[in-house]
Formats: sequence, structure tokens, C-alpha cells
Amino acid sequence: MSDQHPLPPIVLLTDFGTQDAYVGMMKGVIQRLCPGAPMIDLTHAIPPQDVRQAAFVLWTAYPYFPAGSVFLTVVDPGVGSTRQPVAIAAGGFHFVGPDNGVFHDVLGALGEWQAVTIDPAHALESGLTATFHGRDLFAPTAARLAAGAALGSLGSAIESLVTLEPDRFVITDTTIEGEIIYIDHFGNVISSLGTCAWQDERTIALTPRLRPDLEPLTFDAEKVKVTVSRYHFPRITRTYAEVEPGKSTAIINSAGQLEIAINQGSARDRLDLAVGNRITIHLD
Amino acid sequence: MSDQHPLPPIVLLTDFGTQDAYVGMMKGVIQRLCPGAPMIDLTHAIPPQDVRQAAFVLWTAYPYFPAGSVFLTVVDPGVGSTRQPVAIAAGGFHFVGPDNGVFHDVLGALGEWQAVTIDPAHALESGLTATFHGRDLFAPTAARLAAGAALGSLGSAIESLVTLEPDRFVITDTTIEGEIIYIDHFGNVISSLGTCAWQDERTIALTPRLRPDLEPLTFDAEKVKVTVSRYHFPRITRTYAEVEPGKSTAIINSAGQLEIAINQGSARDRLDLAVGNRITIHLD
Amino acid sequence: MSDQHPLPPIVLLTDFGTQDAYVGMMKGVIQRLCPGAPMIDLTHAIPPQDVRQAAFVLWTAYPYFPAGSVFLTVVDPGVGSTRQPVAIAAGGFHFVGPDNGVFHDVLGALGEWQAVTIDPAHALESGLTATFHGRDLFAPTAARLAAGAALGSLGSAIESLVTLEPDRFVITDTTIEGEIIYIDHFGNVISSLGTCAWQDERTIALTPRLRPDLEPLTFDAEKVKVTVSRYHFPRITRTYAEVEPGKSTAIINSAGQLEIAINQGSARDRLDLAVGNRITIHLD
Repeated sequence: MSDQHPLPPIVLLTDFGTQDAYVGMMKGVIQRLCPGAPMIDLTHAIPPQDVRQAAFVLWTAYPYFPAGSVFLTVVDPGVGSTRQPVAIAAGGFHFVGPDNGVFHDVLGALGEWQAVTIDPAHALESGLTATFHGRDLFAPTAARLAAGAALGSLGSAIESLVTLEPDRFVITDTTIEGEIIYIDHFGNVISSLGTCAWQDERTIALTPRLRPDLEPLTFDAEKVKVTVSRYHFPRITRTYAEVEPGKSTAIINSAGQLEIAINQGSARDRLDLAVGNRITIHLD
Repeated sequence: MSDQHPLPPIVLLTDFGTQDAYVGMMKGVIQRLCPGAPMIDLTHAIPPQDVRQAAFVLWTAYPYFPAGSVFLTVVDPGVGSTRQPVAIAAGGFHFVGPDNGVFHDVLGALGEWQAVTIDPAHALESGLTATFHGRDLFAPTAARLAAGAALGSLGSAIESLVTLEPDRFVITDTTIEGEIIYIDHFGNVISSLGTCAWQDERTIALTPRLRPDLEPLTFDAEKVKVTVSRYHFPRITRTYAEVEPGKSTAIINSAGQLEIAINQGSARDRLDLAVGNRITIHLD
Repeated sequence: MSDQHPLPPIVLLTDFGTQDAYVGMMKGVIQRLCPGAPMIDLTHAIPPQDVRQAAFVLWTAYPYFPAGSVFLTVVDPGVGSTRQPVAIAAGGFHFVGPDNGVFHDVLGALGEWQAVTIDPAHALESGLTATFHGRDLFAPTAARLAAGAALGSLGSAIESLVTLEPDRFVITDTTIEGEIIYIDHFGNVISSLGTCAWQDERTIALTPRLRPDLEPLTFDAEKVKVTVSRYHFPRITRTYAEVEPGKSTAIINSAGQLEIAINQGSARDRLDLAVGNRITIHLD
């Protein structure tokens, strides 16, 4: 490490929670192999074994990290089975974890990638246990990448990776239909539809999520209606403060996603919404 | 960064929780703009939008941090409205966040301060969204201050900041009355009264919190009685261990505050106490 | 700090939770006394005052940290009483915390150690409060050790430390009986029996935990039966994936411990198991 070449951060994303010492042990391993590497917790609260949620969270977050960041992503229901351990280079970042689709969303966004299956010879000297590849194989690999190892030195190149089923996305002449994909700590309810940008005071351009085959769709935020469960929203707003405290709204959030929110309250709790609920934009 | 001038820590205080990637995204932004800056989580468990709790927590914690620390404080119910984003220098520290009173307590303790409204031109190149100024504006500003930027380069000077309503504090000839302001993870119930110092084995000097107009009040820990809800405590102790495990006591805690606690138990749960309950010291 | 001699990590293990600013204040103190020291959270979710759980967690985790790591361990029900504050050197690591048995397991594993009672003169300049030695005495001591202070400079040598009651461990001709000692975030239920190593495809060698007086015990994973509560397991497996999702198994986990688990589920919740339950290996 020098002032000119600071170590890139290693960004940890798991379903381990923070109750146990599992995350701490991975960080200990990292510091043994790459002393001084900054380590950032993205979250450890992915629902256990929920690869799709992890893929979504990684997709929302990666653009905010420095070039060279190493994303150590361990949501690994197949640990000990035949699923492959992989390390990937894409968009100036590295990604390390199980090949189970957890990188599907981010690679869909980044386009070109190179990947290797990680050689078990790179496991900790204490060996590769059957149940904790995060500590024994993925953390050492992330540390080596942060310390400057070449991707190709870590294993054999592979040409394909496991993919996920696409999100629900149905367009008709009058509707765009998707699903609720994530609900945050505030109870904000986030749709899978894609990234919305305000073109002017009223016009929204929606780029469907991970659907490069589709053109952006444009509509008037004041004229569309949004429906989710039994609730109807008469327009799309820009800020929580556009509605009174305690009132709900359909809003474009900070990730550009269409979200159902309650100003200073929880839409999940108050409207009883859940991941998987359908959400529809009515265009007329 | 050099060995002679280590980067100051950036201390994060939010109501974001740790379930989502929001805190991680802010840290990614910080590492992009100030690589290697130490980052410390003060807490992300402030109740959503509870500016007063955040102000109190910041007030209790800031004295323990190194000179130069940058406190990045994002409890921001007014995000997207007209509330101002501010950066403040006081007491050798920097404070960055919304101008909604969250810095009221700490500035009341530190006295002199200088502040600017943060110029939106300093937002991330990806733009200033309406709902996540923590990531788009406050994190970049904190990173720039940690990297050595001058306060005045970040925006226009302002002369006043939003203040909070004062805590309940009523003195009579025989009583001092305040309120419960915070309850911690152990269920310890903390009063707003102020900072207590032991003058000798029995005498306590109470400096009322954020009331420079009032002199310290002195009383005998063995002779006063403390009342909260329907409970009466016959004296004030120094340590939890002065009462049996499972027994409650009024104690001066590690922040010098009058606290109701149960030795190896939760006063909140066992005595059913809550923030806002009145607490009274009876002087005779 | 230089490139040649990076600062060792300070590893924090407490029962403070992450709701309050207590952990953050300790980290502020550390950065004042040892700027730039890496800090790793092992966990702050030890059940309040549960010294035995903290001792177990530290024992499972320490081998994964770099030489020189300083383990700052604050689970301290006796704070303010006569229990001694200690700093310990063992196995190339340092340990700092209360002398209440929290280091019993790790020192039992490491063998030789040297220890001092920490001189209160090394407390923060703001003084040693009666209720938060983690901030006032242990954090400064850990920081000084990370910065290179000699153990002997911190206080007076002591020859004995508080020990814990041994775990239940009963061997007969046909059974090995222990207890459930820990349950993790996934609901995996972990026994106290010791460290198991696979000798070949079917043979397990069990080294009893913290019992150097006992020889390793060898048995056939396919022939033993495991009993806990009213559940019986017909063999011991290597991976979660050896049973169908939703099915339970007795497994050797990543720490080498005998564990009851449900593939992609919670054994704690589904089998209603708790710390303290007996677990028996039937050898015939």
C-alpha cells in the first residue's frame, strides 16, 4: 500500500446477520491476507438464502463504490454442493462469491465480464470446510484481488454463469405491470419496474430493469395512475414532502425506482404490502 | 494521506438501520472522494425521523472522538423540502447534515460555531435526488472536509440554524423535574436533567443540560429521593453492583446522567418506562 | 504506522448491541490513541452479561485473525465492583477486558499466557466512570497495545485469572453427552462437545473441547446416532445439502463442531431447541 495506490475497499454482502462472529471471521481472514484493506458492510440482513434479494441490493448499490472495489457476496444456499465458486471482473470492479445467480443483475447492467472458477488450492491453509466457503475461500480470494492478484491467477476461466428468472414485466397498450421486489427499513415498498428519470416537470422516462431488448417508456407523472394491492395512487410524486405526513404516495425514489411510500411512516405496515405483490402503472 | 497527518474519522449517525444498503452506499461515496478515511458507525438505529433522539445521542458521544472528526448526521424527515443542507465547524470538529435541529444540542455545548449551507453544485456527479441527500450531498461533503477542504469552499455562510424546543426542566424549592429522554439497549432509562459529578462521597453537582443560564445545583445523594412513574428510589448510587442483581436503582451513569437501571436487567421492561415519562428529584 | 508495519486490527466483542452509541464511543477513543488502527466488530449481540457465550464466541473466532490482533472484549456484569481489569498476551495475540472468565476458553486453547491488571492511571483523562470501563479503560488499553505499548507497561503482572465452570461432558461405554452451547442467526444449534475432524470418508475424530486430559475419541459417522430433545438423527453428515431442503440433520459444521441444522431452515425454530439442552452421541 502506498499513498499513490490506496487499497480498494472490500464490500461485504451476506445473509449472515450480525449476531454471530461469521462476518468478523471473514474480516479477520481479509486482514491477514491484505492488511489495511478498507472493509465496508453493504448489508448482512439479506433474508437467509434469498439470492434474488441479494442480486437486487448489489445492483442498486455498486455504482456508488470506487473503481477497483471488490464485492464479496456470500448468499450461498448451495454451499457444499456442486455449485461453483467464482471471481468476476466487470466494469472496473471485482465480484467474488457462489455462482448461483447472485451476480446476475449487476452483470446484466455492466455488460462485458470475465470470470474464473476459484481453484480450491486458494482456500485458507486450515482447509476448505463444507459449510463456510465465505471464510475459507471467498474472503481469501477477495483479499488477494484487493492486494493486486490477477483474476486469471485464481482459477480457470469460465464462459457462462448461472442466471436468474427475469422479473415480472408485462406491457399492454394501457398498462405496465411489474412486482414488488424489495421493502426497506422505513417500510418503503420498491417495484421491479426499472429506472425512472424525470425528463421535465411532468414527464418520466422508464428504462425497464435488465431488459436491454426494450426501449425506454415515457409517460406523464400527473396523468398515470398506479395500483398495488387494493390501493390506487392518482399520480407520481418527486418527494415524500409532497404529501402530508402520514399520507401515502407513489414516488420515484433515490435509485430511480417507482416506490410506494408514506411520508414519515411505513407503507409496508400501513398498507400491508409484501414482496411479490403486483404493481401496475395505468397509462390512461 | 501521510503518516504525519492521518485522515480524521468520518462518524456516521442515521436512522437508516442496517438492513438496507443505504449506509453502505454512503460509505462507498466517501471512499471515492477520500480514499482510506476511517469510518465509524455511531448508530443507525435512531427511531425513524426522530431528530431529538439523534441530537441527544450526538451530544453524548462527540467528546470521545479525535479532533478533526467529521460527524455525518442524516436524520432528515424534511429531505426534498426547503430545509437547508449545512456543514458546520465547532470545537475542532465538523458536522454535516440537514438543518433541522439535529446539531442543536452539540452546538449548545460547544458554543461558538461557523456554518455554511452546502452548495448543491457539490452533489455527486450523478445528481441530487429528491430523497437521499445522505448519499448525494452529505456524504460527499463529509468526505471533502475529511480530505482537507475548507468549510468556506462548500457553500455560503449562514448566521442562524434551526433550534429544538428545550427539554422539560422545572425547579422548585423542593424538586427538580425533567423527563426521560433516552432508553438504551440494556433497558437503562436516561433522564434529560443534565450532567452530574460526584463532589465527594455523597455530594452530587448537577449541571442542567443545555441551560447555561442556570448554576449547577448541589445535593446529597443519600438524602434525595427520585420518582419516576409510580416508582420511588430512596437514594442515588454510583454502580449497578450497589444493588442486588434484579433490583432497580437511580444511578449516575457513565455520561454523568441520572438513570434508572436494574442490575443485570432491563428497567424499561420491568418498570414499564418510556421516553417522555417525568422524572423528579425530591430534595428534602 | 508504516507500510512495513501495518497496525494490527482491534477486534471488538461486546454485549452492547448496536442501537446505542456505546460501541462508537469506544471506537472514537481508539482512534484518538491509535489513529488509523483497523477495527473489526466480532459481534455486539452477546446476550446481556452472558460471559459464557462471549467466551465461546471468542474461542471459535480468534484463529482467523492476524498475528498481533487485539481482542477488546467487554461483557462485564461486574463493572464497578471488585473484578479486575486485565490485559493478556497469548499465542501472539492480545486480549483486553474484565477478569470474569471471558478469556477462559481462548486461554485454555492457547496454553501459555502472561497477564497484567490494568493500572487505572491508564484510564481516559476524563476519568474512570463506575459503569463504562469499556470506554474509559479497556478501549484506551487496547489502543495502546495496538500502537505498540509493552504489556508490562500497562499494570502489574498477575498469576491467575478467573475461570468458568467446565461444559457438561460425560462419557460412558456407549454414549458421549454434552449440551447445546450456542444457536446462530440461521437457527443452527451448536454443541459444546468439541472439535471434529474427518479422518476418512466415514470416521470422525472428536477432540473434546477444553479437555486436554482426554484423548480424542474416534467413531463412525454412519453408525452413531445423535439425540437431542425428542429428536433422533441416524448419522452425521458433512454438508447441509446431503438432506433435502427443509430436512434436519446432525452435521459437522465449519468450526468442526457437532451441530443440528435444517437445510435452508432454522433448527432452533422448527425443533424448538435452546441453549442448555442435552445432546448425546450413541456409539452403538
